[in-house]
Amino acid sequence: MRIAELSRRSAVPVATIKYYQRAGLLPPGELTSPNQARYDGRHLSRLRLIRALIEVGRLPVATIRELLVEIDLPEVSTHHKLGRVLGTVAGPRPTEPDDAVAAAAREVQGLIDRRGWRVGSGAPGRLLLAEVLAALRRTGGDDIADLLDEYADAVERLAALDLEMVRRRAEPAAMVHGAVLGTTLGDTMVAALRRLAQENESARVFGAPEPSHERVTGDG
Amino acid sequence: MRIAELSRRSAVPVATIKYYQRAGLLPPGELTSPNQARYDGRHLSRLRLIRALIEVGRLPVATIRELLVEIDLPEVSTHHKLGRVLGTVAGPRPTEPDDAVAAAAREVQGLIDRRGWRVGSGAPGRLLLAEVLAALRRTGGDDIADLLDEYADAVERLAALDLEMVRRRAEPAAMVHGAVLGTTLGDTMVAALRRLAQENESARVFGAPEPSHERVTGDG
Repeated sequence: MRIAELSRRSAVPVATIKYYQRAGLLPPGELTSPNQARYDGRHLSRLRLIRALIEVGRLPVATIRELLVEIDLPEVSTHHKLGRVLGTVAGPRPTEPDDAVAAAAREVQGLIDRRGWRVGSGAPGRLLLAEVLAALRRTGGDDIADLLDEYADAVERLAALDLEMVRRRAEPAAMVHGAVLGTTLGDTMVAALRRLAQENESARVFGAPEPSHERVTGDG
Repeated sequence: MRIAELSRRSAVPVATIKYYQRAGLLPPGELTSPNQARYDGRHLSRLRLIRALIEVGRLPVATIRELLVEIDLPEVSTHHKLGRVLGTVAGPRPTEPDDAVAAAAREVQGLIDRRGWRVGSGAPGRLLLAEVLAALRRTGGDDIADLLDEYADAVERLAALDLEMVRRRAEPAAMVHGAVLGTTLGDTMVAALRRLAQENESARVFGAPEPSHERVTGDG
């Protein structure tokens, strides 16, 4: 494809694509004439990764260049590459145009209906989830968004634990106290546990076969 | 107990306790002489809740006063009270003195050993989890910290889903792309799903018996 089509399919302006090439983030296309080049699917997927690292991972260009060099090394294990990325990216900041969020809000309603969840129409989690789904679909994370029901299965267990903890606290003020802690610190606890469990899963799936106490990710 | 003991057991300075009383957050003690009052366990648990709302929930005093008034109303359902709190509190910001974090880091190591997780000694999730556990133990959330293994059970399923998504992406750059999205947007997706599932659980456990599409929490 020509650079115009690459731009259209990636939703990245031509001038930005050229900047990524000068900055060493995107390999040049195959020259078909002195001032025309041809691009293929690898350029498209690389561009989508760059946009995800910038927009979602909020990484500076210099860091992305380092990461991409490592990602391209065939001798580096996938487990190590994942560890480098997980240790580098910052938090999300999903903000989306209204149309995409509106479509995602219908997805959220579908999920709630399928599961029979009793959730109010103004629950803040609805908008947050719609924003995240829209951001995933825009940045090449359709396969993650498509796992929504499986994630909801796992999260139902978390929520049952949360409410079990609240229920055990007999007095109303203590229940509210527990809900405050569970909502705020509880989210961070789950995020931290998830990071550790991910590293373990990555070691199991992609890492060396024998168990080891050596640090295998993030020591880039 | 006297105010000095209340201060010692809650780790809240006497001057701060007096400020909370003037601000209407903490009921006065029972006067035993013109300038001495007696406090009981309800004052202690109320003080701990106030500290949790300020330090963990990061709420301003005026908001806390409104919340406490509602929490004290016997005719308001627990489901509604929980919804008000969940809709009001902000995110966490755990920072702890070194001793408490060091003790919590040993708890984290114990968890990793019990589960046989392969996690590097410098994994960022270790410190984050230790900080959260220390914050929970300091702010009256021991029962949540004690559920660590149950939460780890539920989170292992999440991590397996995360890695399954990465594994399905055949090409290394696409795997890394998936890990970026899963790590950042994925955490927010889980937090949003959890909020919705919590509301449903709260409706189930504490709410009206018949299913309803009416919003039952957070509509202050």
